[in-house]
Amino acid sequence: MNLKQLSQMLELSQTTVSRALNGYPEVNEETRRRVMDAARRHGYRPNPSARRLATGKAGMIGYVLPTGSAVDIDPHFVEFLSGLGDYARAHDFDLVLSPADAQDEETTYRRVVANKQVDALYVSSPKPADKRIKLLEQLGLPYIVHGRSEGLHFDYPFMDIDNEGAFHEAGRLLVQLGHSRIALINGQRAETFAVFRERGLRNALAASGLVLATPMIRSFAMTEENGYRAARSLLETSPRPTAIICSSLIMALGVVRAARDLGIEIPKDMSLIAHDDVFPWLKPENFSVPLATTRSSIRLAGARIAERLAARISGLEEGKSGEVWPVDLVVRGSVAGAPTRANS
Amino acid sequence: MNLKQLSQMLELSQTTVSRALNGYPEVNEETRRRVMDAARRHGYRPNPSARRLATGKAGMIGYVLPTGSAVDIDPHFVEFLSGLGDYARAHDFDLVLSPADAQDEETTYRRVVANKQVDALYVSSPKPADKRIKLLEQLGLPYIVHGRSEGLHFDYPFMDIDNEGAFHEAGRLLVQLGHSRIALINGQRAETFAVFRERGLRNALAASGLVLATPMIRSFAMTEENGYRAARSLLETSPRPTAIICSSLIMALGVVRAARDLGIEIPKDMSLIAHDDVFPWLKPENFSVPLATTRSSIRLAGARIAERLAARISGLEEGKSGEVWPVDLVVRGSVAGAPTRANS
Repeated sequence: MNLKQLSQMLELSQTTVSRALNGYPEVNEETRRRVMDAARRHGYRPNPSARRLATGKAGMIGYVLPTGSAVDIDPHFVEFLSGLGDYARAHDFDLVLSPADAQDEETTYRRVVANKQVDALYVSSPKPADKRIKLLEQLGLPYIVHGRSEGLHFDYPFMDIDNEGAFHEAGRLLVQLGHSRIALINGQRAETFAVFRERGLRNALAASGLVLATPMIRSFAMTEENGYRAARSLLETSPRPTAIICSSLIMALGVVRAARDLGIEIPKDMSLIAHDDVFPWLKPENFSVPLATTRSSIRLAGARIAERLAARISGLEEGKSGEVWPVDLVVRGSVAGAPTRANS
Repeated sequence: MNLKQLSQMLELSQTTVSRALNGYPEVNEETRRRVMDAARRHGYRPNPSARRLATGKAGMIGYVLPTGSAVDIDPHFVEFLSGLGDYARAHDFDLVLSPADAQDEETTYRRVVANKQVDALYVSSPKPADKRIKLLEQLGLPYIVHGRSEGLHFDYPFMDIDNEGAFHEAGRLLVQLGHSRIALINGQRAETFAVFRERGLRNALAASGLVLATPMIRSFAMTEENGYRAARSLLETSPRPTAIICSSLIMALGVVRAARDLGIEIPKDMSLIAHDDVFPWLKPENFSVPLATTRSSIRLAGARIAERLAARISGLEEGKSGEVWPVDLVVRGSVAGAPTRANS
């Protein structure tokens, strides 16, 4: 079945059918659904060259994937991808992953844009003064940043969660519970989210006249092993912290193990709060002591990034607007009042 | 810089340069590297339409990604993707993820092939008598299966690990250590790998006159929570198993938690072996009791799938050959001789 036959069957113009299939905003949702259903039922597939010609669009969203033997892709990426995939499927987008040398992503960005492979790109794990955002601003392709950079002298479109607010609230709760020696096990310092989380905690402590001292901060790639090592080294100092805030659930597994090895009981001897991206395969409420968390679904973030990219491609969204999602602080059994005599 | 200028500079014919850039096997590795280096240094980017015209290739590998609110993509996927990305980057391939309705992947496969979006596809998580493999056989695009199906009446190219052998060896070791009540916490039954693992364990027990009884088997999506639930229900039966073999490290976290909640000590009261895909972020040697595993790097599998797809695209690999990788059985502290009086 071709476009003409499909249009005749639906008693719609070819233009309307084509626009419906290509997600033009002028076509209302009911018509779009009717056209999509009929296309599916009758096995109509728009010729991709024709579609590209008709719309100038590739129907693809791009992501430059840093690779290399030293690069471990974080399992967070899977959940993000699930959300992005949910939206993309419903709106007939595909996702192109372009693997890049982690030491030279620029070459790959330039290639992807020059090749017109994709209609838009997203950037993730932004660093302070992120060079990729500067580059995309020059290259002129629609893009959006998942997360935020700092120190760029222009605005750019982004979607982030309130990492600073989340760790501020977590810190504030611990201070209210009487904790004053609060440690931070963070992601790598090169990542902006880690900068924001440290700042949030630091400000929460400062508001009560407390200081987040450098020896109380650890920054590592977010693995179970690094969580363990960081917690060991923190808990073996004297006086040791009475509370730890930790940037990932996977790291928190290691923190719990370290506490157990040292005979430190949660929450009696030490409170623990971790950030939870809402993985279906690892839940904070199922930790041996249910884990208090700052919680934000990275799957929903993936869907939102896809939605905004689609809007930018079709011209529904313009400008440089950033959005910041609030983060829930969910209290569970792993937090309690500060022990009166730690290290006793 | 265009192709002509690049060729003149390198004192090579345009044909050779073009072939080198497009990974033709006729060009030797040294020349290819020289050409790629020069192209990179001088910012030469082959026009994708020209490349497609010259080679008939899109330079893309495809994967149909099942999506939907009920679908959780497994974190294994990230590691696989890392390996695939490592190879793809070195050979200038991109990866197209086409999100599909998990209830109707066929429509998406047909679209991807009809659109000539990709040069080859891979299929993962194959099911018994997998319909997608039948479909790809008809559609005629190069493909490879990561894993194996069963009950198809034709050969097809695949790369799998020896799941049956792995769980056979794990079971045999436990039997040799005196265990007779051995339970299996497996992935979902619809997956062929789970079928193979169950078979391997069953045969190992049968070789010693033992039976893997249905009440000793649990099959679930591989989350920590499901590992916990499965282990609880197994360990609360009487007589309870003295050993558990478990299909994933994430599930094993839940098994360890269940044992701890019930006051069952590993390995004194219960031995535990789990399958390890070699995640950098969760290591079996770091479990509270170091975990014995059947080990195979899913990252290496990803790289191998990419390598074979590239070979099939360029015509270096033909036919329907399957390869099966042996799996290491790594013994650690979580296995011991069967307790003489369990449930005492």
